[in-house]
Amino acid sequence: MLILGIDPGIGRCGWGVIKKEKSKVVALAFGCIETKPNEDPGKRLLILSNELSALIIKYKPQAVAVEQLFFNTNAKSAFVVGEARGVVLLAASKNRVPTFTYTPLQIKVALTGYGRAEKSQMGKMVKTLLSLTSVPKLDDTADALAVAITHAFSYKTKLTKAL
Amino acid sequence: MLILGIDPGIGRCGWGVIKKEKSKVVALAFGCIETKPNEDPGKRLLILSNELSALIIKYKPQAVAVEQLFFNTNAKSAFVVGEARGVVLLAASKNRVPTFTYTPLQIKVALTGYGRAEKSQMGKMVKTLLSLTSVPKLDDTADALAVAITHAFSYKTKLTKAL
Repeated sequence: MLILGIDPGIGRCGWGVIKKEKSKVVALAFGCIETKPNEDPGKRLLILSNELSALIIKYKPQAVAVEQLFFNTNAKSAFVVGEARGVVLLAASKNRVPTFTYTPLQIKVALTGYGRAEKSQMGKMVKTLLSLTSVPKLDDTADALAVAITHAFSYKTKLTKAL
Repeated sequence: MLILGIDPGIGRCGWGVIKKEKSKVVALAFGCIETKPNEDPGKRLLILSNELSALIIKYKPQAVAVEQLFFNTNAKSAFVVGEARGVVLLAASKNRVPTFTYTPLQIKVALTGYGRAEKSQMGKMVKTLLSLTSVPKLDDTADALAVAITHAFSYKTKLTKAL
């Protein structure tokens, strides 16, 4: 199963494509879509939308896993992250790929078994689980890979629960 | 000048197309795009995106005016409204129509000259200014027409300020 993980954002939107085979996960590609703060917001969302569509068309993931933030944030930043998340959900929906959202707590527990794990621990777990040579340079990219791994390990559980 | 006003939302997204001729404003069409709460969020955003694109292609507005909410809301609802707003900005950007955002305060002041005007007063002003036979049934539609009127009356001021 191919999974595209996304850490939504307008300035930086992390992404990572992983492949799950039995109980192993492998990273196929990962990166970060960046847009300039001085650009028009609509243009930034359009760049994001085009890049995401290109990734979905290129890798044909069976699922898009998105990090969902509800807490520790104010309404103003929530609006802006919400705009980016809307564009992510739309790109997936247009390409008929189902989306799954996970909270930071679910991601931390899935990767480390501990809900209060720190950024550095999460980065190391991403590196170890995906057998990378180093921790991804940008937090946004590491976070995107982390949510993809979370989906890889919790999808079966989710399905069982839904039945 | 043709202006498309939008009150963004996923369940209900109000819209209104108005025409400004000298100091008069006329409503060409208005309504509300509704999506079902039990649908997948990505599908709801896709419906919204398709309907908005169809409106932009049909009416060819020179500007899209969007209501911007920053206050009196919590992070969770800000995320959801943000998702819808992202899709609105994207639809405008794809069709190369510039977007302008106005806060509720700017809209109230533009329509009534009073920053604490109530919903019912705003609805009546929309009806009067656009010579409608009645106040639009849904608040979302009235709000969309209100933000379009705000743009019609403040665009020149904005341009002057920008120079």
